Amino acid sequence: MAKLSVDKASINKVVVAYSGGLDTSVIIPWLKENYDCEVVAFVADVGQGEEELVGIEEKAIASGASECYIADLKEEMVADYIYPTLKTGALYEGKYLLGTSMARPIIAKAQVEVARKVGADALCHGCTGKGNDQVRFEGAFAALAPDLHVIAPWREWDLVSREECLDYLAERNIPCTASLTKIYSRDANAWHISTEGGVLEDTWNAPNDDCWAWTVDPEQAPNEAEYVSVKVEKGAVVAVDGNELSPYQSLVYLNEKGIKHGVGRIDIVENRLVGMKSRGCYETPGGTIMMEALRAVEQLVLDKASFEFREELGVKASHLVYDGRWFTPLCKSLLAATEELAQDVNGEVVIKLYKGQATVTQKRSDNSLYSEEFATFGDDTVYDQSHAGGFIRLYSLASRIRALNEAKKSK
Amino acid sequence: MAKLSVDKASINKVVVAYSGGLDTSVIIPWLKENYDCEVVAFVADVGQGEEELVGIEEKAIASGASECYIADLKEEMVADYIYPTLKTGALYEGKYLLGTSMARPIIAKAQVEVARKVGADALCHGCTGKGNDQVRFEGAFAALAPDLHVIAPWREWDLVSREECLDYLAERNIPCTASLTKIYSRDANAWHISTEGGVLEDTWNAPNDDCWAWTVDPEQAPNEAEYVSVKVEKGAVVAVDGNELSPYQSLVYLNEKGIKHGVGRIDIVENRLVGMKSRGCYETPGGTIMMEALRAVEQLVLDKASFEFREELGVKASHLVYDGRWFTPLCKSLLAATEELAQDVNGEVVIKLYKGQATVTQKRSDNSLYSEEFATFGDDTVYDQSHAGGFIRLYSLASRIRALNEAKKSK
Amino acid sequence: MAKLSVDKASINKVVVAYSGGLDTSVIIPWLKENYDCEVVAFVADVGQGEEELVGIEEKAIASGASECYIADLKEEMVADYIYPTLKTGALYEGKYLLGTSMARPIIAKAQVEVARKVGADALCHGCTGKGNDQVRFEGAFAALAPDLHVIAPWREWDLVSREECLDYLAERNIPCTASLTKIYSRDANAWHISTEGGVLEDTWNAPNDDCWAWTVDPEQAPNEAEYVSVKVEKGAVVAVDGNELSPYQSLVYLNEKGIKHGVGRIDIVENRLVGMKSRGCYETPGGTIMMEALRAVEQLVLDKASFEFREELGVKASHLVYDGRWFTPLCKSLLAATEELAQDVNGEVVIKLYKGQATVTQKRSDNSLYSEEFATFGDDTVYDQSHAGGFIRLYSLASRIRALNEAKKSK
Amino acid sequence: MAKLSVDKASINKVVVAYSGGLDTSVIIPWLKENYDCEVVAFVADVGQGEEELVGIEEKAIASGASECYIADLKEEMVADYIYPTLKTGALYEGKYLLGTSMARPIIAKAQVEVARKVGADALCHGCTGKGNDQVRFEGAFAALAPDLHVIAPWREWDLVSREECLDYLAERNIPCTASLTKIYSRDANAWHISTEGGVLEDTWNAPNDDCWAWTVDPEQAPNEAEYVSVKVEKGAVVAVDGNELSPYQSLVYLNEKGIKHGVGRIDIVENRLVGMKSRGCYETPGGTIMMEALRAVEQLVLDKASFEFREELGVKASHLVYDGRWFTPLCKSLLAATEELAQDVNGEVVIKLYKGQATVTQKRSDNSLYSEEFATFGDDTVYDQSHAGGFIRLYSLASRIRALNEAKKSK
Repeated sequence: MAKLSVDKASINKVVVAYSGGLDTSVIIPWLKENYDCEVVAFVADVGQGEEELVGIEEKAIASGASECYIADLKEEMVADYIYPTLKTGALYEGKYLLGTSMARPIIAKAQVEVARKVGADALCHGCTGKGNDQVRFEGAFAALAPDLHVIAPWREWDLVSREECLDYLAERNIPCTASLTKIYSRDANAWHISTEGGVLEDTWNAPNDDCWAWTVDPEQAPNEAEYVSVKVEKGAVVAVDGNELSPYQSLVYLNEKGIKHGVGRIDIVENRLVGMKSRGCYETPGGTIMMEALRAVEQLVLDKASFEFREELGVKASHLVYDGRWFTPLCKSLLAATEELAQDVNGEVVIKLYKGQATVTQKRSDNSLYSEEFATFGDDTVYDQSHAGGFIRLYSLASRIRALNEAKKSK
Repeated sequence: MAKLSVDKASINKVVVAYSGGLDTSVIIPWLKENYDCEVVAFVADVGQGEEELVGIEEKAIASGASECYIADLKEEMVADYIYPTLKTGALYEGKYLLGTSMARPIIAKAQVEVARKVGADALCHGCTGKGNDQVRFEGAFAALAPDLHVIAPWREWDLVSREECLDYLAERNIPCTASLTKIYSRDANAWHISTEGGVLEDTWNAPNDDCWAWTVDPEQAPNEAEYVSVKVEKGAVVAVDGNELSPYQSLVYLNEKGIKHGVGRIDIVENRLVGMKSRGCYETPGGTIMMEALRAVEQLVLDKASFEFREELGVKASHLVYDGRWFTPLCKSLLAATEELAQDVNGEVVIKLYKGQATVTQKRSDNSLYSEEFATFGDDTVYDQSHAGGFIRLYSLASRIRALNEAKKSK
Repeated sequence: MAKLSVDKASINKVVVAYSGGLDTSVIIPWLKENYDCEVVAFVADVGQGEEELVGIEEKAIASGASECYIADLKEEMVADYIYPTLKTGALYEGKYLLGTSMARPIIAKAQVEVARKVGADALCHGCTGKGNDQVRFEGAFAALAPDLHVIAPWREWDLVSREECLDYLAERNIPCTASLTKIYSRDANAWHISTEGGVLEDTWNAPNDDCWAWTVDPEQAPNEAEYVSVKVEKGAVVAVDGNELSPYQSLVYLNEKGIKHGVGRIDIVENRLVGMKSRGCYETPGGTIMMEALRAVEQLVLDKASFEFREELGVKASHLVYDGRWFTPLCKSLLAATEELAQDVNGEVVIKLYKGQATVTQKRSDNSLYSEEFATFGDDTVYDQSHAGGFIRLYSLASRIRALNEAKKSK
Repeated sequence: MAKLSVDKASINKVVVAYSGGLDTSVIIPWLKENYDCEVVAFVADVGQGEEELVGIEEKAIASGASECYIADLKEEMVADYIYPTLKTGALYEGKYLLGTSMARPIIAKAQVEVARKVGADALCHGCTGKGNDQVRFEGAFAALAPDLHVIAPWREWDLVSREECLDYLAERNIPCTASLTKIYSRDANAWHISTEGGVLEDTWNAPNDDCWAWTVDPEQAPNEAEYVSVKVEKGAVVAVDGNELSPYQSLVYLNEKGIKHGVGRIDIVENRLVGMKSRGCYETPGGTIMMEALRAVEQLVLDKASFEFREELGVKASHLVYDGRWFTPLCKSLLAATEELAQDVNGEVVIKLYKGQATVTQKRSDNSLYSEEFATFGDDTVYDQSHAGGFIRLYSLASRIRALNEAKKSK
């Protein structure tokens, strides 16, 4: 039976998602040798940090890339991928703020754009064959560039250790500063950093200090609480501490605050899409503050039925985004539903940061359905306590009829 | 049009849910005067605290009750109402651990049992006409005793202030130690204490120290973290710190720990079932620790699709329980589904308590689907990275076909 | 305790939803006598039929109305209320095409507009106190005109029979052609006609011929099948049998076909929102054909996950629309989700009409994800059978790990 | 990278799901040649018809099997797989009664039992690599026998046509009566028969007479309607036309009636689990009647909220069963929920069969929540129309508050 395997001879130019790390540094020469093709490096700046970007173009060229494109996706990522997801309230398996998941579709989309520009006939990523990211990249590629071939070296080559990768580069005289051992596997962008591996591989081990890359240990955080105010419009953060900031700038500002106070750490065992479980420590300092802010404004604005639907949408969205289904009609539909619910989610909150916690202490909204007047005792103009009798009677009518039936039958 | 109003003359004996507080102390004489009936007091011990129960029988008799029944419901409440709800993961509107909601059905059920025993023809509660509890009580009554009349004095009488209530008692020489002013409205049981009113009525006010009744302020909590271990079987806590304890005993133990470390505070604006919003500060110290423990074991045990279903069940259960639908076929169905999912939820966790936070640091389970071997790199016996290529291809096939169609059309 | 009851003296002008039937003919004089106010009649033409509209203005004036406004809502109802609902696939309790439910919000909205125009201070409807329509009307009023009073005479007056209503009119010399007895209660609009009461009140009685008002008995329908073609764009019917028609015109055309072939009858016991069950025979001839057409195009276009979400949205929408929640953020959110899913739902179907059945026999779509090439045997360019092995392996990986665990434990 | 491919030398004995058709007749010698192993044939009698079972043991032996086990699974399939699924109301993508899907898990389970009995080390099925059945079989194998190897010849061998298969047998002198051409692909069991291929491959073709294998064309069905009565207990059919029958016997009885009247035909384009769409004509005569019967009793018994949950469970179950997830915790959980809801689903219905339609005309239940007394006009003991005013007020309170807010803001 014929395989859909790539005819290697047909591949002339490949765009590879290049990080400057060991894996993707190996991928460039490997592609050239194995596919006899030109390799274009594509670097997505999603806020992973300056140190990873310094000199990256030179590094790519030194590894054998013919060109290197760098795209600054930071604002777009926060505005068009993170904010819409935040509105849904998505927390994967109740905890994970989807930091890695949300970055993948925008990187894939920008990579496809470079491929179109340079006339490439294949796309390549450096994700392993056991993880979610391969699905997220290739799911995006299938939706955006079904005509381009996809090369996933980790599912193809025989290299299985850092040592082999380093040897591979050394044999080819490609300079590489990567260390022989690397205990933890990390992924960072403006929103979060994840840490896997090492001591975390045994779930009975508590994370140690090395498992946390950004945030201060809550026990070492300031003994004084600090307060930040966040302004929300249509479900999006538009100002922080009185300053109107862009989505990315808001995130940077809140990251700084969160990091200082040890906010946004989680330690989770999660179900990967590919059927196995993994354990990771994730830090999302600013994102955790944003999430608290949005949910607090929602408390004021959404009615009961809308709130329940938003919760359901959040559960669904968490799986969709985690599973790499961003560029699907289902995801668009779900985001349209959430966007509609967010129309009235305007307001302002004050959040207390203290020893690892972000707690909303004050909140208000022009669209608040909370009314001091309605909720408290005494007469008012919209609620008459006598109404409750009728409400309850009808609300429980089916129970009553059922119980009366039972009583009649047991006679 | 005829009303379903009670024919007062037909009421001979009423069982009233009696708390010993001002309201229910007024209700006893009021019932006797307005319904010309015998009044039996029923006191549910759901762990609201010894001080509320001391001398309560005498107090009830002094207020005019012919008898006073006290039922110790603490173990049953935790085992049969709280534990099943916990398995669902229910958090009303994402935050509230349903402390008041879960106590109502068991109190109502026990009250009906007393009514049957003494041959009463009516049930009475002291809930206000603006709250959820009236619906929870009367929903339970409709299901369990559709033949008994229900009297809700707060929806019927003209008393609107504490002063009027105190005057009412004074005029009748009924002793009462209640104070003239009471800033906050509180409800307590073994699981939680809620605080409403006062400064909280303006959502732009932060809670002050008086808004918290049980827990130590996280800022005043010990500077040293403390660790507790929790053992879970079939989704239920069965041992704490190595001691096999009953559900109620486990809760008492964990409450003590949680209170000391300021764990389990929430400040929420929520949608009441009766259509308005209210704001409250809730403390659930032990419950918060239990919730963390259960969810952590679930992380090890539930597969992805099961986890998502559990999340959906949790959202549904939170509304069902909050809305007082405990004694309905829907609630039974939902709990049956959750019970089934909990069959494998066995394990052990260690939880760190520190300055208001309960964080699981270690977890393990004999039923864990996490496998160090499977999740990490290298060869293994259940997962072949090459499988992923086929998986992704089929997983994204619809996206690919759609995109190919689009490309064809745009030509 | 103060009631929210209307201060009758404050009511100067009422707009009543007037049908020309016995009830609303009584309501006009009753309002004038009981509220000492001017009464304006509002007639909504939702396609209930010419015979109900002939001379209705004169009738309203003769009953005592100061003015009578007639609004033609037919096109708007089909385009803006029915079509969006159809896209969701909503079938209340699996069967009911929501004919009465969908008409209520648009009538209420148009009634409010008249009230604003004439400067009325109250709105009145003729719905009974046991049905859903009172909730639908008043739910819409609450959202659109919370400042206007609502008068629901059937919950207020003492009239309980047709005879009393007729006497009421006779005493006031108001002409009325209504008959003394009326076996069935009916509601009609362009979309459907419902029949309740009479023989249907016993669910063990089969409906008799009188229970069906529009459609030919399938047993009397033509022995020859007839075919209609329907063209769908973005989830909406845009042409029928090759003719581009407006939504209402399409419905009229398909109604005629459906009626002739006995299509669209259902006999259902349903849960009313107010807690009791009722039984009705509903006829939706053209609507049933439209529903079949849309669902068939969806089969071609929606991927698996989108289809499942559409099914879930349909269940939710059926309850929302039935429950009169049209003018709520939740309903808007849900319709936004559906609209997004419908973007690709373009295509054409042929439907066979025969003896009560509407069956799609042919269907096609430019956006079809069905591909003869992909689905059948042999090689193709998008699907490699060997991929399936990897897919299955990962798809069932959690089952495998769980089973291996179990096997290990039982050793 | 090491593959998880089977080490062929390690396979000594394989149990193959044998149907007697062309494919599985080829599989037996192919396994022996390619795996050098003993092959045991396993035949599941799921009601596919006597003609397929006659002489099947001899045929298997003639093809090279060392043994042939035949298991009569008919009663178990209907009782333990079909009835539980029916209670959920599952209709895949709104239409499909899951005939093929429900048979797969029981066949796989019985096949595993044979494998254990004979000490086999591998399981083999004859499903193609493009369909759902491979996933259903292998999903069951993963859960029940993760230690056994799975061989799927259609994903492995090079045979791509019937001609090649026939040649393969002829070369080995294995007798086979299969014809060279076979237009349609069919699958049958007691519950249904499916037809795919041929003219159906173009969705713009209407099915022709050959596409229907069991049922009479509705146009050729009797001109006289026929009535059957069905008795339901706990959501299961327990008697038909007054005769207490086992599940399988009930099905056989109703199949006969349905076939005669052309009941149970559907023509659907569906989403396969493996990402593509397929089109099929399915006939489920008795099943369609059963489904109608159950849903009608539910109308009487389930309250509104329970009904909605049952609808949601039905959507979920349809996907779970279709996707071959029978032996998973999620499926167990979902069935437990449904079983609980079915506890009161007792009653009796009369169903009219006429020209392709099965229509419930009469229904009753001791647990009916429908009450003639409650639903109609006039006074009653459980419902007071004045209650509706209070109900509506609270039910629409959030809308009112929101609208009042808006009005205030726009001033």
